[in-house]
Amino acid sequence: MDTIQSNNYPIYFDNSITELVNFVKKGNYSRVFILTDENTGEHCLPLVKAQLDVLDNFDIIEVNAGEESKTIDFCIGIWKMLIDFGADRSCLMINLGGGVITDMGGFVASTYKRGIDFVHMPTTLLSQVDASVGGKTGVDVDGIKNIIGTFTQPKAVFMVDEFLKTLPSRQILSGLAEMLKHGLICDAAYWNKLKTSDLTVPAPELVHRSVEIKNEVVIEDPNEKGIRKSLNFGHTVGHAVETYSLLNDDDHLSHGEAIAIGMICEAWLSNKKIGLPDAELAEITSVLSSLYPKHLIEDSCHKVLYGLMQKDKKNQNGLINCTLLTHIGQYSIDNICTEDELCDSLRYYATL
Amino acid sequence: MDTIQSNNYPIYFDNSITELVNFVKKGNYSRVFILTDENTGEHCLPLVKAQLDVLDNFDIIEVNAGEESKTIDFCIGIWKMLIDFGADRSCLMINLGGGVITDMGGFVASTYKRGIDFVHMPTTLLSQVDASVGGKTGVDVDGIKNIIGTFTQPKAVFMVDEFLKTLPSRQILSGLAEMLKHGLICDAAYWNKLKTSDLTVPAPELVHRSVEIKNEVVIEDPNEKGIRKSLNFGHTVGHAVETYSLLNDDDHLSHGEAIAIGMICEAWLSNKKIGLPDAELAEITSVLSSLYPKHLIEDSCHKVLYGLMQKDKKNQNGLINCTLLTHIGQYSIDNICTEDELCDSLRYYATL
Repeated sequence: MDTIQSNNYPIYFDNSITELVNFVKKGNYSRVFILTDENTGEHCLPLVKAQLDVLDNFDIIEVNAGEESKTIDFCIGIWKMLIDFGADRSCLMINLGGGVITDMGGFVASTYKRGIDFVHMPTTLLSQVDASVGGKTGVDVDGIKNIIGTFTQPKAVFMVDEFLKTLPSRQILSGLAEMLKHGLICDAAYWNKLKTSDLTVPAPELVHRSVEIKNEVVIEDPNEKGIRKSLNFGHTVGHAVETYSLLNDDDHLSHGEAIAIGMICEAWLSNKKIGLPDAELAEITSVLSSLYPKHLIEDSCHKVLYGLMQKDKKNQNGLINCTLLTHIGQYSIDNICTEDELCDSLRYYATL
Repeated sequence: MDTIQSNNYPIYFDNSITELVNFVKKGNYSRVFILTDENTGEHCLPLVKAQLDVLDNFDIIEVNAGEESKTIDFCIGIWKMLIDFGADRSCLMINLGGGVITDMGGFVASTYKRGIDFVHMPTTLLSQVDASVGGKTGVDVDGIKNIIGTFTQPKAVFMVDEFLKTLPSRQILSGLAEMLKHGLICDAAYWNKLKTSDLTVPAPELVHRSVEIKNEVVIEDPNEKGIRKSLNFGHTVGHAVETYSLLNDDDHLSHGEAIAIGMICEAWLSNKKIGLPDAELAEITSVLSSLYPKHLIEDSCHKVLYGLMQKDKKNQNGLINCTLLTHIGQYSIDNICTEDELCDSLRYYATL
């Protein structure tokens, strides 16, 4: 498959591990760090390490798996390790993992000594189609997702489709929500293709198309001033539901499960506010409901959820700003939604 | 005096508080935060506040004065306050204070929600001629100075010369070291002028010239790949001496006091290694020794000081990289110095 060219960096799909080895050799780095977590360390690192062993001088930094690790406190731990390793400005960080690793590793690297080079080797479907493209880095403070971060591009991204075969189905579903979103916001044909495909492990061509869509959007608007907001479809409600679940549920929702709920709610808002046709709302609701398990959201949680939505980075002046759909494949940004409307959308989801 | 134009932002010298008020009004910010410390809160904030009171909606965030505050832990505290205030992406942070406030406020703002606007109103001589120009932000981790940070430009800088009149003489001397450095690295005439001026409170024209020099350097090389390294003269030894003093002395050295020591040592290295004439070494030593008090550095500290130099951001592959002088007014970058040479330079200082 074609290498995709993003803002000054390539996204490799074929022979990615070999490409990584070539990249490192060419870069003349003083030292190479691989940031990883327990899961990736077990399932993915051996594949990479076997080939990277031709290089001298690389060290592995392992953190606990899970969103709970994506905090500023973990960043401090990693910065201290880099200091202890004597890492200078011309070292490289390879972020080998899911979105937690790529978001946090990107932030750590973009601020250590005011910025060292980093590359991503995303190991989950979600991080392949979402986190690893677009140059957003970020970590959580006080449970608020990605509240601290930078816009910094990696030097390259390396996609390895074998990694997806090691994933449990729930993790596949988590990434799939973003792929479905890519279809919903700007490619109806892609949405139709996804609807009818076997999605147990999405085919590499589908992953490639999702990365292509995301990449086109972020190249046009790297700092999220306009068209990039299209990617926020499903995320106003979805992020709040996700944060609430992270704070309250033992077995909390995955990102994609929360975004699927958010997309149903925001499709309902699209229908009520900007004329998404009834049939298309029904189709979106039906496809998402058949893929994702039902999650109970009681009316008594609405106040807290609304409070979380108000803290979202996307808002200005305390107004809740949603990206909605006029049709499947056509987005509309900057739609102000009221508390009542947002709560009604949650009630729509609850009745399904 | 002329407004100096830096990388896409102005540095105001005349009527700066009025310019700040106009800037804020024009910016249509959702909210304005003033980051300050106890000292500035007492001596400088009243001047600004009287005029800013025409605006609604500004809040003051006060931190403890001193380098001890410039840590990632204080950043976390400020981020949490911004979250609690409900600060959105279109708010403004005014950094009113010395280098601690401008460096840390710049870092906090450049990473909060992936970056909000910030401006500097530097209140010390050091921050006027150094920290507030050049787009470096940074905080300390584990006592290592500025180990975490970003390259992010402020939207404007506002210089107020009245602020300098409130400073104790030791703080003036701290900023003066950077002004003397500006002369030493690229303007012999300016160095000669400084030598013969009354420096109790340096005249606004002198401050303006220093900002002009620093600005020319950083515009040409915003990310410190080449000419910007000229500004590191005195800082390899100076930073190590400063960090050591911060960690060990109750009444620790100011930045300028440490840099003055660093400049004497590195002038000696310049003489030994790249031919700075004896007479110029003698002149630099004499001017700096007459302005700055003698500081005791025993031979037994050399090992620790060398260890600190090795951790300096400027180095690659464990080699210590100094900016030296071929003449007064002419710098030379990337001079590798050995442990023996660096210790001998400290011994030269000790014999004065």
